[in-house]
Amino acid sequence: MRGAVIHAPGDVRFEELDDPEISRPTDAVIRTVATCVCGSDLWPYRGAEPVDEPQPMGHEYVGIVEEVGSEVTNVEPGQFVVGSFATSDNTCPNCLNGWQSSCLGREFMSTCQAEYVRIPNAHGTLVATDDQPDGEFVPSLLAVSDVMGTGWYAAVAAEVTPGSTAVVVGDGAVGLCGVIAARELGAERIIAMSRHESRQKLAVEFGATDIISERGDEGIARVKDLTGGIGADSVLECVGTPEAMRQALHSARPGGNVGFVGVPHDVAIDGQELFFSHVGLRGGPAPVRAYLPDLIDRVLTGRINPGKVFDLTLPLEQVAEGYRAMDERRAIKALLKP
Amino acid sequence: MRGAVIHAPGDVRFEELDDPEISRPTDAVIRTVATCVCGSDLWPYRGAEPVDEPQPMGHEYVGIVEEVGSEVTNVEPGQFVVGSFATSDNTCPNCLNGWQSSCLGREFMSTCQAEYVRIPNAHGTLVATDDQPDGEFVPSLLAVSDVMGTGWYAAVAAEVTPGSTAVVVGDGAVGLCGVIAARELGAERIIAMSRHESRQKLAVEFGATDIISERGDEGIARVKDLTGGIGADSVLECVGTPEAMRQALHSARPGGNVGFVGVPHDVAIDGQELFFSHVGLRGGPAPVRAYLPDLIDRVLTGRINPGKVFDLTLPLEQVAEGYRAMDERRAIKALLKP
Repeated sequence: MRGAVIHAPGDVRFEELDDPEISRPTDAVIRTVATCVCGSDLWPYRGAEPVDEPQPMGHEYVGIVEEVGSEVTNVEPGQFVVGSFATSDNTCPNCLNGWQSSCLGREFMSTCQAEYVRIPNAHGTLVATDDQPDGEFVPSLLAVSDVMGTGWYAAVAAEVTPGSTAVVVGDGAVGLCGVIAARELGAERIIAMSRHESRQKLAVEFGATDIISERGDEGIARVKDLTGGIGADSVLECVGTPEAMRQALHSARPGGNVGFVGVPHDVAIDGQELFFSHVGLRGGPAPVRAYLPDLIDRVLTGRINPGKVFDLTLPLEQVAEGYRAMDERRAIKALLKP
Repeated sequence: MRGAVIHAPGDVRFEELDDPEISRPTDAVIRTVATCVCGSDLWPYRGAEPVDEPQPMGHEYVGIVEEVGSEVTNVEPGQFVVGSFATSDNTCPNCLNGWQSSCLGREFMSTCQAEYVRIPNAHGTLVATDDQPDGEFVPSLLAVSDVMGTGWYAAVAAEVTPGSTAVVVGDGAVGLCGVIAARELGAERIIAMSRHESRQKLAVEFGATDIISERGDEGIARVKDLTGGIGADSVLECVGTPEAMRQALHSARPGGNVGFVGVPHDVAIDGQELFFSHVGLRGGPAPVRAYLPDLIDRVLTGRINPGKVFDLTLPLEQVAEGYRAMDERRAIKALLKP
């Protein structure tokens, strides 16, 4: 089969690779129906994370089950399945607490930009749809496997409640899905921070009530203007840079909450500053598995349409162009079809 | 009148000072019935915070109202009152949200180790008891004005719930009060980290079910042993050092919460480490005012007895000995009587 391999920053190739095989009884192999490029894939692509040797890429996927190990009884060959970028056995204490992305047997997916994918912990990771979904739902179901699940977790971690005010820092695919999540969880006012017109439009379509294009101190001041001078109840930090974290912490009111889902790069939080802010802070890789049944249902009933974050669709073999388009911000997110 | 003044690290004197006066219509002046030395008073006493010029000390108090400003209608002269180390108007947006210690008009108390004290924002800070309380209740009511209120907030910020497991880092007065709070909020298992026998005993009397005397990695391993390998639901960080924060963050399970109430000194939190821990973090000066009616009631009905943290009682004029005894860990906390 063929799949994407990164050889060095800026150098992603579509290559012949070994077919994946069942190696443990809890594995499954799926035929990829759709996969995509993630904002976090750009960290190594841009040289912000090392690329020591050629490595396969991709952690978002929907597909058709080809084969299952002997202990996989939740899905069967031929079914359409959605998974998570973090696999989980769904039985360990952390899974039972609802924190599947801290599963004691967790393995992060990393080979999904390919025609076939081995899914470890398939028994606790994959969720099948009742029927083969119409093609129109595929982008949104794919989004659920990471960006929509992550945006959802950002809103949950930021404790968005009905009637509350939420700020979303970051207008990438996760931030835009965070707007959807804040709306679904009942936020009355949703302030999206974005400087890009196409993303502003999508944020509004997804439920944003206000757009702030300023950043830094000016952006913080604008948030305060819109929130009675004290800041927002909930802030979703969907970037992972020190600037974004600062923006988030200073945009929340005393007693408010920041949910941070951008993998932090060079972020350090000053203890005394956090102390006097009275802001609650929780982050991490989203426990997507916990949300899958609910989010799949919201997609298939037409309630949410996070697939709109894919503004570029390419054949999988053109994966390198997907990276380039996202790196150059020509695309929010590139969907890849084998 | 007379009161305590710190002149330099290690140099606390009991001196003649100006009598406090009503300077704003929202002020009150109280005659101190009891005050005390706080663990945080030891930061400047030990030279860990600068002492640029002689300054009065103390922020914990109960007393009898002597005089009130024209806008103070909640209390009247002659009443026994309890307050908070952070004053609040109790009407600003942060107060209405329950975060009185982030009141937009907040002033921190700092002159309470004295015979008389001016209370700014008295209208939104002081709570009177129905009657003059018996003397036996005075230590516990005094504790409510800071250490018990702070321990309570630590447990609330750590989201202690009925049936949960809580770890308390720090065996000072706040940590010990945190044990009381965790018990009152229904924690089933309360693990106190303490190396001092007298404090261990008090922790057990207050409701601790387990004592851990190890620190650092060994202490973390012991917590994991007691919590099914994953860590505790809630951790109360009641110290403020980098070691204590590390201990706290590593003692909480994924999805658990750390409430931190020790004023952080040189504490920096690594963003990526916090991210992958899945631990929620909230700290700050406790909104004691929000808890006063409830905590006063728990004291006067005999449900809690946080006054036991005072293991040394001195005449106010011997305040310097109170500092010495706490600095040398001969006393957990020194109560001072004018």
